[in-house]
Amino acid sequence: MTDSKTIAFVLYPGLTPLDLIGPLQVLCGLPRIDPAYRIAVVGAQRQVHETDAVIGLQPSHTFAEVPDPFAIVVPGGGAATVRAMTNGTLLGYLRTAAEHTEIVTSVCTGSLILAAAGLLEGRRATTHWAFHDLLERLGARPVRQRWVEDGPYVTAAGVSAGLDMALHLAERLVGIDVARLIQLGLEYDPQPPFGPLDWSQAHPNLFLGLFGIDLPTLLAEDPALLARATGHTAAAVRSPAAVSVAS
Amino acid sequence: MTDSKTIAFVLYPGLTPLDLIGPLQVLCGLPRIDPAYRIAVVGAQRQVHETDAVIGLQPSHTFAEVPDPFAIVVPGGGAATVRAMTNGTLLGYLRTAAEHTEIVTSVCTGSLILAAAGLLEGRRATTHWAFHDLLERLGARPVRQRWVEDGPYVTAAGVSAGLDMALHLAERLVGIDVARLIQLGLEYDPQPPFGPLDWSQAHPNLFLGLFGIDLPTLLAEDPALLARATGHTAAAVRSPAAVSVAS
Repeated sequence: MTDSKTIAFVLYPGLTPLDLIGPLQVLCGLPRIDPAYRIAVVGAQRQVHETDAVIGLQPSHTFAEVPDPFAIVVPGGGAATVRAMTNGTLLGYLRTAAEHTEIVTSVCTGSLILAAAGLLEGRRATTHWAFHDLLERLGARPVRQRWVEDGPYVTAAGVSAGLDMALHLAERLVGIDVARLIQLGLEYDPQPPFGPLDWSQAHPNLFLGLFGIDLPTLLAEDPALLARATGHTAAAVRSPAAVSVAS
Repeated sequence: MTDSKTIAFVLYPGLTPLDLIGPLQVLCGLPRIDPAYRIAVVGAQRQVHETDAVIGLQPSHTFAEVPDPFAIVVPGGGAATVRAMTNGTLLGYLRTAAEHTEIVTSVCTGSLILAAAGLLEGRRATTHWAFHDLLERLGARPVRQRWVEDGPYVTAAGVSAGLDMALHLAERLVGIDVARLIQLGLEYDPQPPFGPLDWSQAHPNLFLGLFGIDLPTLLAEDPALLARATGHTAAAVRSPAAVSVAS
């Protein structure tokens, strides 16, 4: 699949399925518009991947089968995504693919994986609102926008922001007329029943606790990354009293 | 799983994954709020189901394992969903479950399956905008709203409307405070990059053609249903010249 423009949606265990399915549903029709495009859902293996939402997701290809995608979409999630920041197979795939790919995107905490892979150093990027401090400690320059473009990197805010980012990508790739037809096809005319978000309830530490984001446990396999993620030296991190999640 | 309040998300081959994943992602945290709730993704078999978007979805349970859900969510799709209107196993499951369930919901063309099962006769309901005429010919009373509630039936408009409907369900089931926290967790603060839908481009017949909605082919197994769906007598349907898709 290296001769065509393959958009690779990356699976790993425990992710938040909406992070992946939102952009996938927006972009999966592109091959019908321009046959140069191909869509692949890639995983380390072809087996079904568990998610954080009961359902299992099965990739269409392995990482090895799509070594050189045109674009990558890295979905996020909760604790499993933080754990994936030490997943060598996943990071290796992203680093290699990113050398030649034209567009590297993430949804929600997917940007933390890109940062852990060293790909967002000094770049403007975004992530789920509760994870901005962590993204910054990992070397990116967090921006509070629905999505952020910096060179080949396009990162989206939390979960549902993948839909907005993907429509933007569709415009970039096949033009606004087609992108608007996709929006019409998905009847994407959002009407959140309680109106806009109530940001007064957005307490990062509360949410990180709800999500089970315990960095020392989740990043135990990579002490150097843990030290960066917590903003402490590796030695200090070994003392539980020195660890804070998002301060 | 009959002693608890199980919300069953229904899988069938070829569906649009966002129709299912949107509401699933909104509601999958309910068991952590109230342990009476359980979430199941149900299919005729446990095997991976193909979808209209490259990815495979694996249910957590079979229909037989969840005979008596508290609530059902029926996702929609394109041609595969119209074909599912003649899927006896699926219709049988929905009819039996609907006898005792408290809430029966659909997203997008999922309401056509409910209508084909005879469950929306005379009820106010909605569906994807391109399928309103078909929903009406199947006995429902179509309403142009993001979601429509009529007794135990809650039907949502096209694809992405499942997110809005599910947040409404969350409010109904566990209260607005929790529902707003879910909205915050999903960072559901939609910003469609091109603004609202351009309804001037919403031509049902064009979209039905793009979706490959050929009723005589898709409903061939049930001539009586085909006759209702096309608004013609069964005899007339046999003459191709008499068939129109959405007139």
